[in-house]
Amino acid sequence: MSEAPRAGILVTGTEVLTGRVRDRNGPWLADRLLEAGVDLAQIAIVGDRPQDLLATLESMASEGLDVVLTSGGLGPTADDLTAEVVGSFQGREMVLDEALEGRIAEILRPLAARYPDIDRDAIAHGNRKQATIPRGATVLEPVGTAPGLVVAPAEGREGPTVVVLPGPPRELQPMWKQAVATEAWRSAIADARVYRVEMLRLFGIPESEIAETLRHAEREGVDLSALEITTCLRSGEIEIVTRYEPEAQSAYDQFARIVATRHADTLYSTDGTTIDAQVAALLRGERLEATVTSSDRPAAGEPDGLVGAVHTIAVAESCTGGLLLARLTDPPGASEYVLGGVVAYSNEAKIAQVGVPRETLETHGAVSEQVAQALAEGARTRLGAELGVGLTGIAGPGGGSEQKPVGLVWLCVSAADGASLTRSVRLPGGRPDVRERSALIAMHMIRRLLSGERDDVKRRAV
Amino acid sequence: MSEAPRAGILVTGTEVLTGRVRDRNGPWLADRLLEAGVDLAQIAIVGDRPQDLLATLESMASEGLDVVLTSGGLGPTADDLTAEVVGSFQGREMVLDEALEGRIAEILRPLAARYPDIDRDAIAHGNRKQATIPRGATVLEPVGTAPGLVVAPAEGREGPTVVVLPGPPRELQPMWKQAVATEAWRSAIADARVYRVEMLRLFGIPESEIAETLRHAEREGVDLSALEITTCLRSGEIEIVTRYEPEAQSAYDQFARIVATRHADTLYSTDGTTIDAQVAALLRGERLEATVTSSDRPAAGEPDGLVGAVHTIAVAESCTGGLLLARLTDPPGASEYVLGGVVAYSNEAKIAQVGVPRETLETHGAVSEQVAQALAEGARTRLGAELGVGLTGIAGPGGGSEQKPVGLVWLCVSAADGASLTRSVRLPGGRPDVRERSALIAMHMIRRLLSGERDDVKRRAV
Repeated sequence: MSEAPRAGILVTGTEVLTGRVRDRNGPWLADRLLEAGVDLAQIAIVGDRPQDLLATLESMASEGLDVVLTSGGLGPTADDLTAEVVGSFQGREMVLDEALEGRIAEILRPLAARYPDIDRDAIAHGNRKQATIPRGATVLEPVGTAPGLVVAPAEGREGPTVVVLPGPPRELQPMWKQAVATEAWRSAIADARVYRVEMLRLFGIPESEIAETLRHAEREGVDLSALEITTCLRSGEIEIVTRYEPEAQSAYDQFARIVATRHADTLYSTDGTTIDAQVAALLRGERLEATVTSSDRPAAGEPDGLVGAVHTIAVAESCTGGLLLARLTDPPGASEYVLGGVVAYSNEAKIAQVGVPRETLETHGAVSEQVAQALAEGARTRLGAELGVGLTGIAGPGGGSEQKPVGLVWLCVSAADGASLTRSVRLPGGRPDVRERSALIAMHMIRRLLSGERDDVKRRAV
Repeated sequence: MSEAPRAGILVTGTEVLTGRVRDRNGPWLADRLLEAGVDLAQIAIVGDRPQDLLATLESMASEGLDVVLTSGGLGPTADDLTAEVVGSFQGREMVLDEALEGRIAEILRPLAARYPDIDRDAIAHGNRKQATIPRGATVLEPVGTAPGLVVAPAEGREGPTVVVLPGPPRELQPMWKQAVATEAWRSAIADARVYRVEMLRLFGIPESEIAETLRHAEREGVDLSALEITTCLRSGEIEIVTRYEPEAQSAYDQFARIVATRHADTLYSTDGTTIDAQVAALLRGERLEATVTSSDRPAAGEPDGLVGAVHTIAVAESCTGGLLLARLTDPPGASEYVLGGVVAYSNEAKIAQVGVPRETLETHGAVSEQVAQALAEGARTRLGAELGVGLTGIAGPGGGSEQKPVGLVWLCVSAADGASLTRSVRLPGGRPDVRERSALIAMHMIRRLLSGERDDVKRRAV
């Protein structure tokens, strides 16, 4: 394997540096570089001062990086200086590209028409500034009004090729496709191998189990040296990201099969789809991709009866205070299957809004198996939904007791046909952790019920 | 004003570099540096490779930075290399601090007792590794198990002082206080001036109005050159952050008074408190700090009758799907005043769960003034709350029409005493923007009603 090309990402903008605006471009570009077979050496965030920008470019050059991606600083005003600084860094003078000036003017025309009072001189000046680029640079057509650039070092000079991209993610992301299609980019990363990147997601096991599975795979003779495996624990879920060259496909397949066999009950995604996307698809009546690629084991299937029809859902949640409903209604088109729900914070709301019997609350307390089940049933029947979810717990910091400590949560998902799942958990962490994690567990329980899993009747009769 | 000391922040960790974990330390430390009067030149994110860490330290040194703050890489395992790399960078050999080794062992003792099967040799080895530090470094006592360090260049060498901090924010943040109290830190930033930092928050005006206010302040003779003013538009709110030396207090007071006078109806926070914190305080019955520091103008007051008593609240929301309730229930203790609410996504849910008259829905449509008011009234009366909030709109991408386009939202906040506010807005952006912004507007309407603002009766009778 020849050494992979190395890249730096340079994010500009005082608002990002000072933390007022969160950088979304660095992580997104990091994923693109991973796919492109380019190693990412560092992400640097600098303010709008040209000397800081230039110093960072020079230090990235001195580390021998092959490409640098910049984001931001391409606007029409005088303090947007990235193109000029990159031109000077590459030893290329700035020249007006008149054809580009005309194309930007076309983009601006409807804007100017909408605001008759706008300062036309300022517009024309900004237009010209955005069309002034380093001589010989490859232009990436504007998605907003700012063109991007791919700028190689001037002839006779050495150093990284710089890809200059706009700051707004909705402009940067489409422009990236143009950038990687340019001759200038391809020759800068000529040595790059093409990699495949796959992601497995698991829910409900500790990260140490994965370490044990890796040792097991090695003992089974899987060539792990051909796989770059990164495991990451993120809010209770484990992501296993594997990058490998196409020749290592069979090693990856063996590895994925071992994970699927050893963790059949916790592996829920083999194609990187999130739990939220899976729940939305199942509620829309779509069939999930087979969970497991191995032919040794049938896909953890949805009973065919559930596929093809929309499943309506309603929620009665307490300690999550609306987080579960907000999550379920996040995807476009959620109104097809989410009928609604109740945030029943007080006992009176549980009684009046969901029909939880007062006696159940008094006998078992608000955080109990019985109340979770009554919430699920009440949500389902009152809103006329096929599925109901009930969630009640103690998010803290107050409200805990010895029997019912902060972090105790009861959840129930039940269906019109009598199938149901009821669980309790004791979650660690502070109030936001308990709330987030509870909503996540509910999502996984909805997925499991829709995938055919259910408590046996004895369990329900308890 | 002598030139301020300059700093770099160096965040380590492959998970952060690849975007699997979001960096929270960079923005937090950026704010601390702002307060300490230290200019932040750049934030660099690198993986766990020691050569990348060292190269970045060297490039920061070559840019003449006075201090570098690092986060991460202080764990007990062999791939946690920050202390060693910093030692080598500063020309200081690594030595075992036996007293520190003993203190870390004390911290680990209860852990080892809880897990009898734990590998004691591995623990002892990790303990020794964490107690091995650059000779002459100042130790920052562990918050978790990892000590931090302040490491100046070895005698006879030049370059930045490096403050080595752990990666987990819950360890880094308390340790920062220790770091700034050390002699080594103080002498590294000896030239730093102490600054004051103030934040004003406004809601509901375009950023260009602030630019005009700055010009006005200049014409009025306010010495803006003594104030470093940054304005930032963040999801519909404007933050004005001003940094100044104590001598410029009167310039800042004049500036703040001009903002308060010109933007009396949109300035809602003069002490940096967020709308969520203000709404929580008002619902708990607390008095807000006067909104305006100037004596020219009475504080936008809460009627005294509203202060001192808890105000209960209930919500019926449609297109926000639970976001408003999730936001209201976020603060600890929210169960004191949030009784609950309904996410009434379908028309049937609006009728059955909130009591919106079917006729109102049929006559005016689900997204209308009348339905927003019926939702607020229904939430209030059904849950027995003092305040009710109703919110109905079209979040998109589907569901819009010519009369009622995507982004149209009707909101109503009403109180048991008959006071109410009803508003409609047409929000730009995609589904997540419309949902987030609608919830934000509702928060501001709750604040306004609790601060004594109300529509006149004629408005309500429409």
